[in-house]
Amino acid sequence: MLTLYTAAGTCALATHIALEEAGATFELAKVDFSQAAQRSPGYLAVNPKGRVPALATDQGVLTETPALLLYVAQMYPAAQLAPLDNPFLLARMQAFNSYLCATMHVNHAHGRRGARWADEASSHADMLRKVPQTMAESTALVERELLAGPWVLGAQYSVADGYLYTLTRWLKGDGVAVADYPKLAAHMAAMEARPAVQRMLAAY
Amino acid sequence: MLTLYTAAGTCALATHIALEEAGATFELAKVDFSQAAQRSPGYLAVNPKGRVPALATDQGVLTETPALLLYVAQMYPAAQLAPLDNPFLLARMQAFNSYLCATMHVNHAHGRRGARWADEASSHADMLRKVPQTMAESTALVERELLAGPWVLGAQYSVADGYLYTLTRWLKGDGVAVADYPKLAAHMAAMEARPAVQRMLAAY
Repeated sequence: MLTLYTAAGTCALATHIALEEAGATFELAKVDFSQAAQRSPGYLAVNPKGRVPALATDQGVLTETPALLLYVAQMYPAAQLAPLDNPFLLARMQAFNSYLCATMHVNHAHGRRGARWADEASSHADMLRKVPQTMAESTALVERELLAGPWVLGAQYSVADGYLYTLTRWLKGDGVAVADYPKLAAHMAAMEARPAVQRMLAAY
Repeated sequence: MLTLYTAAGTCALATHIALEEAGATFELAKVDFSQAAQRSPGYLAVNPKGRVPALATDQGVLTETPALLLYVAQMYPAAQLAPLDNPFLLARMQAFNSYLCATMHVNHAHGRRGARWADEASSHADMLRKVPQTMAESTALVERELLAGPWVLGAQYSVADGYLYTLTRWLKGDGVAVADYPKLAAHMAAMEARPAVQRMLAAY
């Protein structure tokens, strides 16, 4: 049995979408960020990093979105959620997921999580002011270079699409208008037409 | 033919080590950061993100360290650089690499690259002051939770080890004493005893 530790509005939605697309049997464990439950002793025993997502499996707990996405794709190969037999295309998918986790998500995090990297209130305000610029730069790079269309890798849907959709949902709050990016806007609409995404959204 | 775009002191060393461990035939293209060559039109045509590493292959250019590491492991399976036949262990390796790229490298980058996320000099100074703390926290997590020992995954060496060694080399400059972390100090010494690592170091 799989248990996904998740929270509304977080990047855990990407793994949730992948599990729905895979047709996996899994349970959800919602971590209440409003109560700082991600830093409770109980949750830290699951994931010492105090973050979501975490995926409890029969072999142990796994963390980090890019790792979970490839794991789901490998465990449910019939769903064809990654180019598992093509190292070059798989590296393209992995590079996309790495960009989202290490650059675009990090840009977003400077809006509300500035205390991770600086102590002064003035620094946090400075970081927050810059989020619309850095997120627009990331969005433009995705639109221009990384999103082949209609899906991230082109004709084949993959776990990278659910990850991109998860971060696309943050853009409005970060001061970026999705409508200014036609390929991304079409991607968002196509994602919201998928039953797996609708099932994920209904769970929060 | 493979060409690795790299620069001294950057995370590109991780992919360089992997290529050496794999016994790959490759060329090095050094990108001169002191001349901001990573933002030159010529290099942006290779990698629009203006970062290293990038790996030019016969099929096209690949980027992002975690993607390149798995790609090298897949293309040179005889070198046994990743648990390719075990999705759970592979996810553990991927999670480790994701933590390095999205958390530990990001913590480090706040020392010299604060302008990515804030505009004021006072914010950059605040970020720089906090680097010893955030890097010590990341190092402690690696020591306590993530580094099985002697290698990242335990008995089996993998591409994650070259990545960890690459970031370990940054710790002294970030105000963290490797000697305070016995498993990590042993890991660093074991890495420096490997011929592949010595060949990499000799290339800069």
